Amino acid sequence: MPAMIDGILETALYVTDIERSAAFYERVLGFKRLLADDRLIGMAVADSRQILLLFKIGASTQPSPMHGGLIPAHDGQGSLHAAFAISESNLPNWRIQLSENDVPIESELVTDRGGTSLYFRDPDNHLIELATPGIWPTY
Amino acid sequence: MPAMIDGILETALYVTDIERSAAFYERVLGFKRLLADDRLIGMAVADSRQILLLFKIGASTQPSPMHGGLIPAHDGQGSLHAAFAISESNLPNWRIQLSENDVPIESELVTDRGGTSLYFRDPDNHLIELATPGIWPTY
Repeated sequence: MPAMIDGILETALYVTDIERSAAFYERVLGFKRLLADDRLIGMAVADSRQILLLFKIGASTQPSPMHGGLIPAHDGQGSLHAAFAISESNLPNWRIQLSENDVPIESELVTDRGGTSLYFRDPDNHLIELATPGIWPTY
Repeated sequence: MPAMIDGILETALYVTDIERSAAFYERVLGFKRLLADDRLIGMAVADSRQILLLFKIGASTQPSPMHGGLIPAHDGQGSLHAAFAISESNLPNWRIQLSENDVPIESELVTDRGGTSLYFRDPDNHLIELATPGIWPTY
């Protein structure tokens, strides 16, 4: 049996105020908190099995001892990027949802394959994308 | 119809040498190149519809004009984190696969729910995790 990967499980952003960021992702994208401590808030990406991790900048530069082992050190800065999948039929709803939450669409991109990307910013200026199928050969 | 998200589509890492990083993810994790230019390499996360984006540090600080619109600016630094899902039955294969590729397991964590995480580093010291179900309430 070959070593197989099933997909992305977690994507991580590094933010100045994890509470402010979690409130944004809750309100704007409908994500739900699964775990919250001083270092991070982990959120369920809608009803998927996947997780958005919001790490407080500078809080994970040392390994974190857990009951069953050690989480190694990591940390990040900058205006990072993550993209989430949406259906094409849901695109109008997302325009309304962003507008009603006072989140401006910074750019909109339509690919030759027919997919649409909406780009906007989170409170730390991270570049967040909602993309319909037709963006990639595999999506 | 409410605005729905289907899951994570893209997770992004910022690296010093996109060719070196792509070779690592190809060799160690079996990802496949979908797109490569001077700014980034986009890789299919195994057979999923999801994408790992490897951006050259400093190459996306200006918006990128595309045929169908503009990709806004972003950039990141540091030792970032991403996790990929694997099945528990595949855990022994992954230990062999990492070992055969001279990628040391920096830490191993077993959660109270019974999930296992293997942590290792990519060429830019990003913290990469392979996790079996039992890590999160939703996974």
